[in-house]
Amino acid sequence: MSGAKILNITGMSNNESKWVALDKIEYQDPSGKKRVWEMCHRTSRKGDCDAVAIFTILSATEDKPEETLLVSQFRPPVGKLTFEFPAGLIDEGETAAQAAVRELKEETGYCGVVREVSPIIFSDPGLTNANMKLVVMDVDRSLEINQNVVAVPDEGEFIDVFHIPVNNLYDFLIEKEKTTHAVDARLLHFAYGLKFASKV
Amino acid sequence: MSGAKILNITGMSNNESKWVALDKIEYQDPSGKKRVWEMCHRTSRKGDCDAVAIFTILSATEDKPEETLLVSQFRPPVGKLTFEFPAGLIDEGETAAQAAVRELKEETGYCGVVREVSPIIFSDPGLTNANMKLVVMDVDRSLEINQNVVAVPDEGEFIDVFHIPVNNLYDFLIEKEKTTHAVDARLLHFAYGLKFASKV
Repeated sequence: MSGAKILNITGMSNNESKWVALDKIEYQDPSGKKRVWEMCHRTSRKGDCDAVAIFTILSATEDKPEETLLVSQFRPPVGKLTFEFPAGLIDEGETAAQAAVRELKEETGYCGVVREVSPIIFSDPGLTNANMKLVVMDVDRSLEINQNVVAVPDEGEFIDVFHIPVNNLYDFLIEKEKTTHAVDARLLHFAYGLKFASKV
Repeated sequence: MSGAKILNITGMSNNESKWVALDKIEYQDPSGKKRVWEMCHRTSRKGDCDAVAIFTILSATEDKPEETLLVSQFRPPVGKLTFEFPAGLIDEGETAAQAAVRELKEETGYCGVVREVSPIIFSDPGLTNANMKLVVMDVDRSLEINQNVVAVPDEGEFIDVFHIPVNNLYDFLIEKEKTTHAVDARLLHFAYGLKFASKV
């Protein structure tokens, strides 16, 4: 996976882009004054939500601790490999839960069951209306279907899957960030929350 | 704070925008094939990192539990009030720690001490190179300087500050999301990590 690299970056306008666009927002501030804000939006949204990310729980077994799944892939906007939760855009007509089941299977090969779906949350609300739901899924690794799983990525996706003990998530990310990977901010926030609560 | 509202949204190109821009990235995928990706970037970055967000720890006292600080403000890209950690862009020549001390004071009025600074993390790596550091800060509310604090927001900022018990952060956000506020994804991930570890 080390062959990926950036070749060239050039400016682009809304009429050249397919997936993203810039907007100028005129708004009234709380004092009644008219102001301007600039933002970016994804043009791919089908309903009210762009995407899902998945916190997977693989229960502890006799020989394995409780683990979660991370995906590693080359992300052109970052220009590096990243660690993120498995994630993807919601297709037309899909619920967030359905998208999560599909994406987990595509990206990791595992069949999971949805435990919980968050409300819509915003990835960087000062910059963009890009939004998502965090879906919590259980994977039963004793099931036949979850033995020797094989991912079925979309064309053009090159994804490596990592099984990380939940109680080591933060330290794993910090260590990898020092060497090979950039880390998704939502994932690091999750991991820091885990670590903080575990220490208290 | 309820008077804020969106008046108009129009498309915009890179030569009209001041704060954001679109890019077309040509990259080589891991198989060696040339591909295109579209992204958005902040034009305001001064060094290698755009922004900081602050997880504040106000220690428990005789009559108060351990609390953290959230800010509520109207976010034009979302068109609603949001809850986020106190946050802001890093100024020219500032370290992340310096930006965090300054932003906490401006947005909440509190003087804090930096406990920990995360590595650079990426808010939505499929969409943008926008990045940040999570800064953990302690606020000693027994200090004279932290009595009857007054925020000193920038011109055009209208921010309400909330003190939330750390062990109630997730439930607070879920409840507010049902009624008045949108929630930042990084904050909700942090809160879910806290909640998940506390249950285990």
